[in-house]
Amino acid sequence: MKINVEKCAGLLKKEDCFAILCHAHPDGDTLGSGYALLRALQKLGKQAKLICDDPIPTKYEYLYDDIEVQEFDEKYVIAVDVATENLLGGLQNTYGGKIDLCIDHHGTNTDYAKYLLLNADAAANCEIILKVIKALGVDIDKKMADCLYTGITTDTGCFKYSSATSNTYRSAAELIDLGADNGYINRVMFETKTKKFAALERLAIEGMQFFLDERVCILTVTNEMYKKTGTTELDTESLPPLTRQIEGVEIGLTIREKADGTCKCSIRTYESVNAAELASAFGGGGHKQAAACRFDCDVKNATKMLVEKSKELLHI
Amino acid sequence: MKINVEKCAGLLKKEDCFAILCHAHPDGDTLGSGYALLRALQKLGKQAKLICDDPIPTKYEYLYDDIEVQEFDEKYVIAVDVATENLLGGLQNTYGGKIDLCIDHHGTNTDYAKYLLLNADAAANCEIILKVIKALGVDIDKKMADCLYTGITTDTGCFKYSSATSNTYRSAAELIDLGADNGYINRVMFETKTKKFAALERLAIEGMQFFLDERVCILTVTNEMYKKTGTTELDTESLPPLTRQIEGVEIGLTIREKADGTCKCSIRTYESVNAAELASAFGGGGHKQAAACRFDCDVKNATKMLVEKSKELLHI
Repeated sequence: MKINVEKCAGLLKKEDCFAILCHAHPDGDTLGSGYALLRALQKLGKQAKLICDDPIPTKYEYLYDDIEVQEFDEKYVIAVDVATENLLGGLQNTYGGKIDLCIDHHGTNTDYAKYLLLNADAAANCEIILKVIKALGVDIDKKMADCLYTGITTDTGCFKYSSATSNTYRSAAELIDLGADNGYINRVMFETKTKKFAALERLAIEGMQFFLDERVCILTVTNEMYKKTGTTELDTESLPPLTRQIEGVEIGLTIREKADGTCKCSIRTYESVNAAELASAFGGGGHKQAAACRFDCDVKNATKMLVEKSKELLHI
Repeated sequence: MKINVEKCAGLLKKEDCFAILCHAHPDGDTLGSGYALLRALQKLGKQAKLICDDPIPTKYEYLYDDIEVQEFDEKYVIAVDVATENLLGGLQNTYGGKIDLCIDHHGTNTDYAKYLLLNADAAANCEIILKVIKALGVDIDKKMADCLYTGITTDTGCFKYSSATSNTYRSAAELIDLGADNGYINRVMFETKTKKFAALERLAIEGMQFFLDERVCILTVTNEMYKKTGTTELDTESLPPLTRQIEGVEIGLTIREKADGTCKCSIRTYESVNAAELASAFGGGGHKQAAACRFDCDVKNATKMLVEKSKELLHI
């Protein structure tokens, strides 16, 4: 059932012992949403924990480093920034069909939870969480502001994408006034490259391929490249935006090889192509200009299929 | 004489036939300031023109493409985003000592104009110009909003730098509500790379050098690299931020060779070092974390001098 911010706050006030689920391969928006909400609920004297199927990259440490880990039997399950249950990864086995509340900003949300608070106009899910926390009457402290700012800045590519609205900027201004350390957060999220990442990035850029009159750019990260540079998949988060930076590119694809030789693909597009549409052709999903999907085949075959589908979407 | 926003608006209302001067090697903030102010003055029925000593890169075309060029004898000279007269380049010969009003946000402003409206807390000069235009009582149209947003986003590295305050974000939100096309502007300013720029960038990154325990990173752009890739100095604007992205780098230097074999240097730093202090050691200037200077010697000697001075500032 779709609900509004006030109804959502009402539910949260009534319930207790919360498990907050983030999506697998977690990013700043799902983690920022989860930890800000957890902090707000604990501040109300409730019990709450955050669960994610994948390890949380260390750069997000400041989101949770001071949080008290609580032991309790969970009674109410919330998913944040999770468009479909299969984005929960392994958690789907435990929680599939049992999610009480979902707070999300993906237009593609499959309405799988008992209650759904959805605003597809929000550039980041943290914009919605900010409203929920205010509706809960919780004073937003510096740490919460850092969590919420993190989600907003990461999901908008540091305010770069056209998804950022005036409300997005206003939310950021409010969070900075509440203590969010925008300079530090943006530096950690967007500026700092480890030397091994810089090496991986260089290899990936050297191997960039162009297709369909150079309207499609494909960047491939292979297991060999991880081995050569000492990196892992966790180091690849900032590669996808590179693919659509070259003039004339309308579809940017980042294909990452997995240990078992299959692969997954991050899709970035501009207005002319719907990234979610391309992803959904392969069972994936996401936003209009940023989406993702998985393949059961190797990089070579995935590349071929992606180029074919891109050709169709570009009407070539 | 230092003045406030209201006094500045009062002067502009009283005067007419304005020449608005931008700094040489113009960026989004000096051009956005200049064109927004020009538009506001013309909207008040006054005559105004913009003058810059260097060609304006074509990516800024949307700032001025619809502006009526007016022929008149200038009576009042305004400098925008110009910290010292020598940043005017060749215009210094004509206008040095004759500038009536300066609107600026550089703490290093030398107070060279008859009247000075200065706010060193503003992340971008366009934040100040926004206030001046509001004080003039001019309705801000979409084109003006585009100009002002451009200055704000470019001078903050798309809201990435710690110089961006909540007021910066609020100004941006206001401008988006007034029609500024943030998605388009950020795409043009930060996302789109021409193929020849991508080639130059790759060459520059391949040649990156590290000094002083890798706390200093130097990226050099030579005349040979321009020739090889078909680029010019106008293509190098987005290189400086790359230098301080590597973990551990505190001073990032981009040295650009000029046609005559001398060179200039863009400096980017983090909190530990004042970029303006490093620049001023060589007669340049700028902000705490972004500054620039020129050299009468070749790249090799400039590199040596910059590393020596960096060593001192890093207390090594």
